[in-house]
Amino acid sequence: MSEMDKIVYRPVRDELAYTFGGRMPVAHLRSGDVLQVFTEDCFGGLVRGPADLPSQVCRMPYLNPVSGPFFVEDAEPGDTLAVHIVSIVPARDWGISTTFPHFGALTSTTHTATLHPPLEERVWVYRFDRQAGAVRFEATDSDHTIDLPLDPMIGTIGIAPGGFEARSTIVGDTHGGNLDTPQLRAGTTLYLGVNVHGAMLALGDAHARQGEGEACGAGIEIAATTTLIVDVIKGEPTPWPRLETDTSIMSVGCARPLEDAYRIAHHDLVTWTSTLTGLNVLDTYQLVSQIGRAPIGNVCDPNYTVLAAADKALLPAAGTPYGGMHERLRQLAARQQ
Amino acid sequence: MSEMDKIVYRPVRDELAYTFGGRMPVAHLRSGDVLQVFTEDCFGGLVRGPADLPSQVCRMPYLNPVSGPFFVEDAEPGDTLAVHIVSIVPARDWGISTTFPHFGALTSTTHTATLHPPLEERVWVYRFDRQAGAVRFEATDSDHTIDLPLDPMIGTIGIAPGGFEARSTIVGDTHGGNLDTPQLRAGTTLYLGVNVHGAMLALGDAHARQGEGEACGAGIEIAATTTLIVDVIKGEPTPWPRLETDTSIMSVGCARPLEDAYRIAHHDLVTWTSTLTGLNVLDTYQLVSQIGRAPIGNVCDPNYTVLAAADKALLPAAGTPYGGMHERLRQLAARQQ
Amino acid sequence: MSEMDKIVYRPVRDELAYTFGGRMPVAHLRSGDVLQVFTEDCFGGLVRGPADLPSQVCRMPYLNPVSGPFFVEDAEPGDTLAVHIVSIVPARDWGISTTFPHFGALTSTTHTATLHPPLEERVWVYRFDRQAGAVRFEATDSDHTIDLPLDPMIGTIGIAPGGFEARSTIVGDTHGGNLDTPQLRAGTTLYLGVNVHGAMLALGDAHARQGEGEACGAGIEIAATTTLIVDVIKGEPTPWPRLETDTSIMSVGCARPLEDAYRIAHHDLVTWTSTLTGLNVLDTYQLVSQIGRAPIGNVCDPNYTVLAAADKALLPAAGTPYGGMHERLRQLAARQQ
Amino acid sequence: MSEMDKIVYRPVRDELAYTFGGRMPVAHLRSGDVLQVFTEDCFGGLVRGPADLPSQVCRMPYLNPVSGPFFVEDAEPGDTLAVHIVSIVPARDWGISTTFPHFGALTSTTHTATLHPPLEERVWVYRFDRQAGAVRFEATDSDHTIDLPLDPMIGTIGIAPGGFEARSTIVGDTHGGNLDTPQLRAGTTLYLGVNVHGAMLALGDAHARQGEGEACGAGIEIAATTTLIVDVIKGEPTPWPRLETDTSIMSVGCARPLEDAYRIAHHDLVTWTSTLTGLNVLDTYQLVSQIGRAPIGNVCDPNYTVLAAADKALLPAAGTPYGGMHERLRQLAARQQ
Repeated sequence: MSEMDKIVYRPVRDELAYTFGGRMPVAHLRSGDVLQVFTEDCFGGLVRGPADLPSQVCRMPYLNPVSGPFFVEDAEPGDTLAVHIVSIVPARDWGISTTFPHFGALTSTTHTATLHPPLEERVWVYRFDRQAGAVRFEATDSDHTIDLPLDPMIGTIGIAPGGFEARSTIVGDTHGGNLDTPQLRAGTTLYLGVNVHGAMLALGDAHARQGEGEACGAGIEIAATTTLIVDVIKGEPTPWPRLETDTSIMSVGCARPLEDAYRIAHHDLVTWTSTLTGLNVLDTYQLVSQIGRAPIGNVCDPNYTVLAAADKALLPAAGTPYGGMHERLRQLAARQQ
Repeated sequence: MSEMDKIVYRPVRDELAYTFGGRMPVAHLRSGDVLQVFTEDCFGGLVRGPADLPSQVCRMPYLNPVSGPFFVEDAEPGDTLAVHIVSIVPARDWGISTTFPHFGALTSTTHTATLHPPLEERVWVYRFDRQAGAVRFEATDSDHTIDLPLDPMIGTIGIAPGGFEARSTIVGDTHGGNLDTPQLRAGTTLYLGVNVHGAMLALGDAHARQGEGEACGAGIEIAATTTLIVDVIKGEPTPWPRLETDTSIMSVGCARPLEDAYRIAHHDLVTWTSTLTGLNVLDTYQLVSQIGRAPIGNVCDPNYTVLAAADKALLPAAGTPYGGMHERLRQLAARQQ
Repeated sequence: MSEMDKIVYRPVRDELAYTFGGRMPVAHLRSGDVLQVFTEDCFGGLVRGPADLPSQVCRMPYLNPVSGPFFVEDAEPGDTLAVHIVSIVPARDWGISTTFPHFGALTSTTHTATLHPPLEERVWVYRFDRQAGAVRFEATDSDHTIDLPLDPMIGTIGIAPGGFEARSTIVGDTHGGNLDTPQLRAGTTLYLGVNVHGAMLALGDAHARQGEGEACGAGIEIAATTTLIVDVIKGEPTPWPRLETDTSIMSVGCARPLEDAYRIAHHDLVTWTSTLTGLNVLDTYQLVSQIGRAPIGNVCDPNYTVLAAADKALLPAAGTPYGGMHERLRQLAARQQ
Repeated sequence: MSEMDKIVYRPVRDELAYTFGGRMPVAHLRSGDVLQVFTEDCFGGLVRGPADLPSQVCRMPYLNPVSGPFFVEDAEPGDTLAVHIVSIVPARDWGISTTFPHFGALTSTTHTATLHPPLEERVWVYRFDRQAGAVRFEATDSDHTIDLPLDPMIGTIGIAPGGFEARSTIVGDTHGGNLDTPQLRAGTTLYLGVNVHGAMLALGDAHARQGEGEACGAGIEIAATTTLIVDVIKGEPTPWPRLETDTSIMSVGCARPLEDAYRIAHHDLVTWTSTLTGLNVLDTYQLVSQIGRAPIGNVCDPNYTVLAAADKALLPAAGTPYGGMHERLRQLAARQQ
């Protein structure tokens, strides 16, 4: 197709980025371009077996690398960047999860600081059966195993923040980043409000699957080859990350405490839905209170994430978000597969 | 049946209770008994139309009445009470939702105290189409309507707390109470750790449906006729409320901030699952981190609720919770319908 | 004096109370009465040396006993009870502090639930030199000692809550209770909004001193003989506990997370100060923002406490709180000493 | 003195910085140098009277400018930068405070997101009487005035963060930044763990005074001329900002929720004190629990601040922090005045 270029990018080690913002672009994209990008896992590929404890083989701040940033032509502050996820393919036949000292939801942390020594640091290796779409959990202290459905997602995806900031890739915020929500799977369109000229998209930290909250601090961490289509919605700002699937719209809140993440997400969903439907704000508040779902993303990163989701089928007379962008990208994606 | 009595209870107004604990029983139950109980809505049935503002027609503390308590024979501290929900039938053809001054998730509250005047107090009336299984949302400021699936749940169910306490029915805690989770629907078994001789079960506050978080502070509030089967698991304590369905086990955490509710629920699910499967605790932490779901109950009550849920199908070699109590009550329930 | 009776009360063990509310009065007081009351320490006097680990010698829920309740004649819902602290005298020559499993600010707790085993439980015995006004810290793992100023305070003081509740004495809330703030020392007047006929005052849990936040979960816990004067302010409600000294007014907030305790306290101080000074609310918000102090009470109990304090000397044209009640009780107190 | 140079710096408008990190240095300092630096107020000097509403005259992200960064020779990652505050002199005879839409402690905010419209935005102008050491509060809605003590402090001071980040000057964190604590006054030494070569010190946002928590979101904001002495402690890292005065040591925690800021600060104070005294950690936890003070800095910025403070006189056999750095800088400062 004339209007769709396919950009393929695979970073060499020195090109990996550890911040959103503060970096020069690795490539340029235009609206409608397809991007196929390789991303390393959150350990930079250095944890490969039970003996590779992350605190020993990884070196701060070289964690959670992202590939990018990609300069998106035409993207300016005040616009919205649409990123449709076409596919996420694990790059290897295994994934890794670990505990990590003073990181996670059921442990004392650097911020929920206590006098406890850290929990034991341990590595779990999951083998994949691509044919069966399964990832195998193997216990470390017993013989138990169980097959879990493969459900690949992107943990970290975002653009440069505003205000001249450069933020660690560990953080999720208005610019996206380490959202760590299972909703970022193939078929989803992500909307991000552009802060700087060129948007500066980057991504990494794919998971073969992840529970809600990412309790131990890690999903099943994988290197992956991800295919995206990007587009720009001119002149329409987006305050917090938003997601759209064929059946739902979702707003993302990133904050601590967790109730503020919930509040941000629901405030945005109410505002957005009010605009889409023409319902006044109190009526929308009421409706969302009865139909809203609130899937938790992570409860371990510097900012927790909660989503607020509404089924399109339960919204009266709803207009189409962002002028039908999701449907259009969906169709473009179909041609890719 | 010889072993199953059916107790039918419909309170007169003066019998409504506003605390868990501190009350004499209204009836006695034995293990295996079926209880059919009428519960008023959270407004005591006093809000019947747009003009009935709760802050005007209701009088504190006469909100969120429960029916009971029921003395369960054989239930002693250290035991677990099992309560299986057979059915929840709306008692009227309509339900009510409202905003309420300084109560809810997207408003300044008495505790998240600010200098804002309250949001507008408003009443929404939902009509039911039982045949279609639908409840109709009607906007108050425009002509929009939409039909939502009827999905009845019990908002408030619990037993007497320990430590000589009597707690308002607005509060959820280890004794159950105002959990406000959509998971408390027909087909679910609730497990509660008994604190006092006779357990002292009570319930109320049914909803025709509710979004996760109950953002505006109310579900679609209904009077209902609920059918339960109760049983006692002797000598097995339960630290926080637990739920079981045909496909899942769930632990409930009640706390502020919301991350503590998440932590409590997941801590309990990890501990419980470790016992059920024989996995060691760190292995269970890992597994739950990849399969756990974390449905939010409410983000408006004095204690927020978050659940931690695991699919039974994803637990390796799991034993049967509470000696197969859920399956047994499920079969008893089938005979009731 | 004809109008001042002195009531002396020393509970026998069976009279100790473990809730606010849900109890019959142990004695009656009239406005202006002097009450001299013995209170046991928070361990019920059972921890007397390093070998007496609280989790072994104490039995739940028999922790944090209070003496009372005292029925205050004339106190009705809508009134305010004034309690002036005349003196707090340690009953023994020693006090106790301990760590306690999963309780405290720098530890995993039952609510900030993690997978860590509890920190070591340990007992510290402090000896008092009344002449010097000193309490001696002695390290348990080395020879270090240091003398700290004796600064006695009441940890737990409150009345019956409303809404038919009975609340554990471990909890602080609108009814007072386990506030655990060093500001509750001799010379302070405490104001509590009355919820039930007779108010039902009770107190206990004195500390020889305590740091802000009570980080380890305990102050230097003592039995004490406390002298109070009580009075009733008719027809004037008080939403949250308030304190007055010769130089300051203070509002108390009890909540989680800690910022909500801060918000509650400051909201009340702004509202109260606005009434006292005639400043409009936004002007008062501004003034309190520049002069307010925010001493933290506890960060370990079920509800944390933060105070909002203002120096009377920095309030323009301030009226006298509660019609000069503090000054009047101060004078009555002077006659007691 | 040969070893003490005095560097005087006054930025022109284009030199003002809005991040820590991501900037080239404006000047170089050596250990022992005296820096006299002019800082604009947090509004960039653009709010000069009641009609200058910040949301209208200021433009995001050009808020809270800092002067700097200053490259400190010899400062390397793993070292600690000591910054002694010699004096803070208001640059004008007036200061400004304001409310700001959806910012502050007693208001709905962008993160504690609700459906309330913002509180009224209003400006207060304070006049200074330098002779009397007073700042005059004048009510906007009535004739009330009151003189408050002048107590100048630095709201924002920090160095470049690690991990290639550049952080908005609105944020406080391990690198310092917008700590907004009244403890940062003349006579205090601030210790910051160095993250990057040259440390990159910057400061701004002085206040004529501020209440604990900075409830309305602003202190009495001033331009100021501040005199500092800097020094480097080689090979000694500092995890979170620390303060030392002639009588106290203090650790600073920056986080949400507020209890995490408390935990961080107290964890660091316990660890630090343990090292200084030779007490084991549990003994130190106990001692700090009885002597610790917990002054709140701000409850309005992206990260709240709480301090943990201990009087040196109550620490047994305490060694001298950082090899006596505070005393030495104190003496150097004395020669400056």
